[in-house]
Order: sequence, then C-alpha cells, then structure tokens
Amino acid sequence: MNNLDNQVYPVIWETDKVLLIDQNRLPNEYGYVEISCYQDMAQAITTMIVRGAPAIGVAAAYGVYLGAREIQTDRRDEFILKLEEVAHLLSQTRPTAVNLFWAIARMLKTAKQTIGSVEYIKTALLETAQAIQREDLETCLAIGEHGLAGLPAQPEKLCLLTHCNAGALATAGYGTALGVVRSAWRNGRLARLYAGETRPRLQGARLTAWECVQEGIPVTLITDSMAAHSMKQGLIDAVVVGADRIAANGDTANKIGTYSLALLAKAHNIPFFVAAPLSTIDWQLATGENIPIEERHPSEIYQVGETIICPPGVEFYNPAFDVTPAELITAIITEKGAIAPSALSKLSV
Amino acid sequence: MNNLDNQVYPVIWETDKVLLIDQNRLPNEYGYVEISCYQDMAQAITTMIVRGAPAIGVAAAYGVYLGAREIQTDRRDEFILKLEEVAHLLSQTRPTAVNLFWAIARMLKTAKQTIGSVEYIKTALLETAQAIQREDLETCLAIGEHGLAGLPAQPEKLCLLTHCNAGALATAGYGTALGVVRSAWRNGRLARLYAGETRPRLQGARLTAWECVQEGIPVTLITDSMAAHSMKQGLIDAVVVGADRIAANGDTANKIGTYSLALLAKAHNIPFFVAAPLSTIDWQLATGENIPIEERHPSEIYQVGETIICPPGVEFYNPAFDVTPAELITAIITEKGAIAPSALSKLSV
Repeated sequence: MNNLDNQVYPVIWETDKVLLIDQNRLPNEYGYVEISCYQDMAQAITTMIVRGAPAIGVAAAYGVYLGAREIQTDRRDEFILKLEEVAHLLSQTRPTAVNLFWAIARMLKTAKQTIGSVEYIKTALLETAQAIQREDLETCLAIGEHGLAGLPAQPEKLCLLTHCNAGALATAGYGTALGVVRSAWRNGRLARLYAGETRPRLQGARLTAWECVQEGIPVTLITDSMAAHSMKQGLIDAVVVGADRIAANGDTANKIGTYSLALLAKAHNIPFFVAAPLSTIDWQLATGENIPIEERHPSEIYQVGETIICPPGVEFYNPAFDVTPAELITAIITEKGAIAPSALSKLSV
Repeated sequence: MNNLDNQVYPVIWETDKVLLIDQNRLPNEYGYVEISCYQDMAQAITTMIVRGAPAIGVAAAYGVYLGAREIQTDRRDEFILKLEEVAHLLSQTRPTAVNLFWAIARMLKTAKQTIGSVEYIKTALLETAQAIQREDLETCLAIGEHGLAGLPAQPEKLCLLTHCNAGALATAGYGTALGVVRSAWRNGRLARLYAGETRPRLQGARLTAWECVQEGIPVTLITDSMAAHSMKQGLIDAVVVGADRIAANGDTANKIGTYSLALLAKAHNIPFFVAAPLSTIDWQLATGENIPIEERHPSEIYQVGETIICPPGVEFYNPAFDVTPAELITAIITEKGAIAPSALSKLSV
C-alpha cells in the first residue's frame, strides 16, 4: 500500500492484525489502534475510531475475516453459519452508510462461492478484504480524475467548499470529495479549500483540515453557519462532498449539514458535487426517503473535549445524517465518471 | 427593575456602579462583573461580557455616564468635548449593532440639550441611561405581544426555531426573539423551542438554552447544521431571530448563520420573523449592503473551552454577522407591531 509517498491510510493489514488510525484522537495525536478480533472491529466502527463510508466498508471486510479465522471447524456449512453471525454483528454497528453492508455481503458471497476447505475459504476471505481495500484506493484515484474533469472551467483557480471528511481517512486512501480536491490541487486548479467544521463531531476541523495541512493544501476553516455568507461573498466556486448512501434516483445521504449546503449552493447558483464510489449506491432504494438516519448520543452535541457547552435540563436532537434530494446535485462523481443524478441508473450493473 | 419575578437582567445600575452578568461564564457560572469606569465598560462590550444589540446599547449608555462623572470641570464646553472622547472610545468597541451608536448618540444629545450646570447634566445623563434601559424592557414586552399576535395560527402549539441569543441577556430584560418565545409560552402557544447552538461562540447553547431552562420552557438544542434537516422533518413551524442592525429597506444584519436559516426557511416554506426594537433600524442605510460586518479573532473558531479543535497550519474566516435580505423576512416585529419589511419606512419617525 506504499505506492504513494506521505499518504494516509486509515486501515492497514499487518501480518495478522488490522491497524486503524484512531480518528477520535486526531488532530492532536496521530496513532494506530490494533484490532485482532471482529468484536473489537465492530466496536471501532461504532465509536468512530474508523469512520467514512468507504473506510467502514474496508474495515468491516477485515472484520469479517478476523471473525472467520476464529471459527474452529472444518465443516463448511457450520463455518458459513457462524460467519453469518459475525457478519450480523458487524452489520449492527452503523445503519446509514451502505458500503458497510455492501462489503459484508461481498465477503459472505466470497465464502459461499469459494470451492475448497474452510482453511482455503479463510484465505480467500483475506484476499477479498485486501481486494476491497485495493479497489477502493483505485476508485478514489479515478474519482479524483473524473472530478477534476467535471469541475467548473472558470475561474482557473477554484475555491472549493467541503463538509465533514470524505478524505483519505474516510476511504482506503486519497479520498472521494477530498480526492477531487487533491486532484485539483495537484493539477494547479485549486486556490483554496474551505472546510466546514462539521458539528457535532468536527470532522471538518479535526480530519479534513489535518489532511490538507499534511499535504500543504491551503485550507480555511469556517463554522457550518458561515457557509451561506461565504457563498454570498463570492468565496465559493463549487461544493464537493462525499456520500454515505445514494438511492437509485440520486438522493444522497451524507453527514448532517450536507442538505443544508446543497440548498444554500442552489440559492447562490453554485454547483454542488457528490463524490462517491459505486459501492455507495443502494440500487434497492428507489429514493432517499427510506434511508435510515442514525441518531447518535447527545453528548456529541453537549460536550466538546472536556467542556460542557449548555446547562442541565436541555433536550437534544442529534441526527448524524441528512438526505439531499437529487435535484440539488449537479453531478455525482464516481469511478466511472461524473454524471447527472438523473442518469445514475445507467451505471447500474 | 424587579417588577417581574425570576427575571434575568444583564445590566443593573447599583448606586454608583454597573453590574453586568458575565455572559462568557454562563451557563457554568451565573455571576456579575462590577464596572465603575467607562474604559472597563468598553472592554466588557468588546470581550462580550455583555452582548446582544439592545443590551450593548444600555451598557454603552451607562458607559457614557460613567465617563461623564469622571470629567473634572465646571465648564460646559470642555465637558462636552471630553464626553465626546468618552463616546468615541465606547463607539469603537463593536461595529455592527446599531443600538450601540444609537444609545451613545442619545446620551450625547442629552448632554448637549440639557440646560444647566455640568453636575446637572451628569444627573440628566444617568437618568437618560436609566430611561434607555427602562424603555428597552417595555419595548421587549411590546415586541413579545406583537410577535405572539403575528405567529402562524396553526398549529395551536408551535415549535419555534431561534438562533444565537436575543433573550433577556441580550436586552434590558425579557428579550426580543426570546420575548416572542416567552409570550408564546406564557399564552399556551408554544410546544417547544429549538435552539441552534450558534457556533462559534455558542450563544444558543450557552445563553438561550439557559434562559429557557430558567423559565421551564422546553428547549431542544441542535447544531446549526441540523436546521435544514429539522425543517424537512416538519419539526419547525416558524423561525424567530433578533437583529443587530436593520437597513431602511428591511435587510437585516444578525448573528452569523441567520442568513443561512432564512434561506432554509424559505426553501421549506416556513415563516421567518425578525424581532427587534426600532432603535435597531438604521434609517441612514438604504440597504444592508453597507452594514459593516465585524470579523473576530480566529480563536473563537479553533478553541472550545480548553480544547483546540484543529491542527496548526489552518487558516480561518470568522465573520460575526451576516445580512439577510428583506425578501426572505416574513415580518419584522417591533414595539409598534409586526410589519412586512417593505412597509418598514412607515415606522420612520
């Protein structure tokens, strides 16, 4: 995985265990957590040590393998049955990002379709997890290229706005939305990235800003409430975000606040791009209406570091995602190209 | 000033000094800072110990008096000259809220129009500051009544969304936007207040939520990024915010994020109200285009309590206010009634 220098890889397979960058400790500490069993992987996904739809998919795939190698049986049917329990636990970690379910399903399919001993299936599972990871990195590089081609031609040096972190940390590496930003930067098309801090968990401030600083990309941090004013001031040429689940019609679930940005971009006539691998598309869902929206613990809102920001007696609403209707999206940038949401079904395999 | 029980008064005149609720320490500590000279009052306004457009006006008026009583002269012309220096310093504290300039101008006018000795003028100045405070409280109560009358008739129990703090803490007492909320609550028209936390300084979380808890008003705290999703979910019946400066055409400067909420409300067909005293209207400005927007220190973004939320090397943009165009405002609620922004000029005296 070291084909690119100075790159960030949130999930690393090392001989017999998985290393995860602990994304809850960034940007103050850049370190790894060792994961050796599938229960710990499930916990790491739930607590967002690893987060970002594609990265969750990669992590869950390794989680399935970690579970598989613990299963003590030579009987194939018993193995599959127990593997399904592992898959079930891993699939309970987070409800919105579809890459999680996509990766787990692919791992189960590998197990069921591999002819040979249980040991041989286990080897095939590791290879599949590694393939998912490798393919995701390639996918991100392709998204970066297609995104670059799809960006507005003027001005030459663009100011882009992104939300949350759809970067190397959210994928196998390079990133989806940040992949587009990186490609723009490396090709002289980027003046500056505006990063929305992304309350409540501040992934924009903690992770996106950190990735930009690592690479020397000029980055300006704003609070989420400043996006509209920044657009009105003419500071933003385009918005690029990632996705956690895209319905067949192009409706897109992504980090809470994305829908808000899409409405604001439309009001200011600014193009709004979603960058995501095809594995993020849930072809089973006709529209975004039925995408399950995770609600997380209120402490994400009321506590920042050690600071409690509000008095006792307050109630909270903490949806982790929202759904942006397809009509607010200029184009969805996938590894197969940037296309209008209305044409998405052409990519269905 | 104790005509209402359990009320919050951010500015209190006590014999020979001003007590200010230290709003930077809320909600963790509810205590007062003593202000005995005009330089300290200027500092208190700059550092936002006292904040909120009408409260700043009241505080600045007392600041002018504190400066006046220090002037050691019996000569009227010399006194006025020195008082203008006091006024100048106080007017440099914050650029956006017009109530500051309005209150200072009224104090200067009192000094210039009062016939009598310097001592007599000083007494008149204290009386004027007290009148500004008393009138602002009466104004807020009137805004509350007019706002209640202007709220949507359905549903019977409304869910309102507000931004920042336009409450008792932001005024002489009772509040403007929160005055409307209080009136709705006391008249059985309020189901719940949604409070946007209002990054970067979190006045919604720290101050508005605190005021609601003090009065038993059901309050749900959301991050600013959750407003659009909450509206789409049908949780919000109307938005009510305060104002720092209103141009003659109704364009309204208010806390950063207000313009965003106005656009989102329009997209969801939700009425959007601005509640403010007539002293917030700057009749000299035809439109909001020329309202000066204060930019504050980046530390307001990068630091929450003791926690630094982003890595070194990031840049920041920290506008404290934005301007909402009149066409996004359903009505402006003043002490003279709730009227469409287009009819605002009728209120010009």
